[in-house]
Amino acid sequence: MADLVYFDWNASAPLDPTVREAMLPWLGERFGNASSVHEYGRRTRAAIETARERVAAAVGALPGEVIFTSGGSEANNLFVKGVAASRKPGGIAVSAVEHPSVLEPARQLGRQGWQSFEIGVTGAGMIDEAAWREALARQPVIVSVMSANNETGVVQNVAALAAEARAAGACFHSDAVQAFGRLPWDFHALGLTAATLSAHKIGGPPGAGALLLDKRLEPVPLIAGGGQERGLRAGTENVAALVGFGFAAEQAVARREAEARRLAALRDKCEAQLAAAGATVFAHGVERLPNTIYFAFAGIDGGALVDRLDRAGFACGSGSACSSARPGTSHVLRAMGVEAGLARGAVRVSMGRETRAGEIETFVAALARSVLELKNLAAVSV
Amino acid sequence: MADLVYFDWNASAPLDPTVREAMLPWLGERFGNASSVHEYGRRTRAAIETARERVAAAVGALPGEVIFTSGGSEANNLFVKGVAASRKPGGIAVSAVEHPSVLEPARQLGRQGWQSFEIGVTGAGMIDEAAWREALARQPVIVSVMSANNETGVVQNVAALAAEARAAGACFHSDAVQAFGRLPWDFHALGLTAATLSAHKIGGPPGAGALLLDKRLEPVPLIAGGGQERGLRAGTENVAALVGFGFAAEQAVARREAEARRLAALRDKCEAQLAAAGATVFAHGVERLPNTIYFAFAGIDGGALVDRLDRAGFACGSGSACSSARPGTSHVLRAMGVEAGLARGAVRVSMGRETRAGEIETFVAALARSVLELKNLAAVSV
Repeated sequence: MADLVYFDWNASAPLDPTVREAMLPWLGERFGNASSVHEYGRRTRAAIETARERVAAAVGALPGEVIFTSGGSEANNLFVKGVAASRKPGGIAVSAVEHPSVLEPARQLGRQGWQSFEIGVTGAGMIDEAAWREALARQPVIVSVMSANNETGVVQNVAALAAEARAAGACFHSDAVQAFGRLPWDFHALGLTAATLSAHKIGGPPGAGALLLDKRLEPVPLIAGGGQERGLRAGTENVAALVGFGFAAEQAVARREAEARRLAALRDKCEAQLAAAGATVFAHGVERLPNTIYFAFAGIDGGALVDRLDRAGFACGSGSACSSARPGTSHVLRAMGVEAGLARGAVRVSMGRETRAGEIETFVAALARSVLELKNLAAVSV
Repeated sequence: MADLVYFDWNASAPLDPTVREAMLPWLGERFGNASSVHEYGRRTRAAIETARERVAAAVGALPGEVIFTSGGSEANNLFVKGVAASRKPGGIAVSAVEHPSVLEPARQLGRQGWQSFEIGVTGAGMIDEAAWREALARQPVIVSVMSANNETGVVQNVAALAAEARAAGACFHSDAVQAFGRLPWDFHALGLTAATLSAHKIGGPPGAGALLLDKRLEPVPLIAGGGQERGLRAGTENVAALVGFGFAAEQAVARREAEARRLAALRDKCEAQLAAAGATVFAHGVERLPNTIYFAFAGIDGGALVDRLDRAGFACGSGSACSSARPGTSHVLRAMGVEAGLARGAVRVSMGRETRAGEIETFVAALARSVLELKNLAAVSV
């Protein structure tokens, strides 16, 4: 697939070759169950704790605040359901543009005696001020607002939201799966109660993630039965994946600033060309991730466009990959009030460390051709 | 660690080199989010479905009955909690010797309006007939009895238990993490409603497992929010681990019969020597896994013995690795009515494909020396 340009880094990033090298010994001569008391077990335990320290240092958290999970979806579920199960039913408020792994658990709670409230956003995808006030007025126990959105790339002001939510007595969680490695992001500086990370979005392997959690919280484990992760997550640790996560987290921070500047320049240039070609760029004008371009051409179906681009050599996203198994338009664009016809045209280009300037240039040309072809097809069929 | 003999295969098995080879392309040039609609996504999806077919074929299930998880503990929790959440509160009966990832969720349900019952076992670790009758008389909604125990290796007659439990209207689940690959094991032939598998116990990687599930059951997902695994398990799939799981499952079945014969011969020889040296072999005389030897010397602390064996070059287990973070004696031996003093001496030797006859011979000699040293130490300190 060397000739297919990968523009879907928000769905999954390729494993970084140096991360791979760090993992390989743990897929070979090194192995063991970290709960075992012999030498194999001790070495495995030591590797996991080193990985925990690396992740903690990369995000401004303490090692004891890092609970390793199998990924971001599990961490989001552990926070929402685990904290809820440790409290009396009350209110939960999550933004309407959250990842489904926050939205769905909140809706599950809504069917179990909790008052679930979805906080609306503006047309640009930012938390709506009036909706936010209404959410806090309900005195929720749990509030969750993501640091940056996977589809639009819109960055929320989580430091301010966290301060207000915590002052109102809520636990404030932020899904930082897309933000970490792309924005300056620090767990303590942002004043969060909890946050979610994923390894495979930052050049680490699939199968590893973390819930960062204030140690004063004692959620009920989602996966119960072992002493692992302070009793909060049972199961033999995936040591190779956790070692990779630790290295990837360290690298993501080291490279972040230069990469963000480089990708933002590519994004701005690409978006200017898209706008000139008649595209609507979603959430234009607010702070967004440097690597994410989300757009639509009126009257052009996004799925058909992604398919045509795929055949032309560019792997792009259509809405969120995490929900592509479910039909219908993006819940993020719906929450932003984007008209359904335009939302159906949504295409996402998300870039990463392997993305080169030349690829963006050839992409814009291929896109223009594809759009023209689809318009001609539509004209013929009318 | 080439000079340290690994005798802890029930805790975790080293990754099989051929499984590793199958995984490596998915930790390199091949990657992608299986939910993406472009070529990267489609190839990832295809690899996952091939892995699902391999696992299904290896255990006599249909591909549609295989729900991939991050491991055995998650699969056990998904079954117990997921099925419970889809029903009105009722009874749940699990054997007293289950893995903590079955026992603990059952106890959680017991605090949430369910009637939780733990089925006692005989002194040899088999399900006790009277306790079983009492469990069924309570008309439980959910019953779970493991196929083979991780500590003792005791094999339960799950086909008969499943038939009776299902005739009584219960869903019958069996944790087959230790049985699969070591015993003839067939999901449909055993008449199970559900079962749990783990990749890293059969030469596959950590981070992959499966819940086999009758398609008529619709559990509430533990990790909610994505369409993955028929909507029963959200999260980007760990494709490398699943590919490895598929290969490992296929190999485990192909090698099983010859390996079981070879290891049972080593076990029997070792146990005869242990008994001659004055050890108590737990669950002697009932059908057990061919690779597992569980024993104690009266008056010798198991932890101290495992530590001394570790320094002598043998990595053994002390009780269950999954609960070694928690002190106290084995809940399995307690359920069997083993006297606490003897239970504190428990040491487990679990073998696998790399175990050689010569290693057992040198082990028995080293063990005799270690026991003598510890006895002398005890005599001096008295």
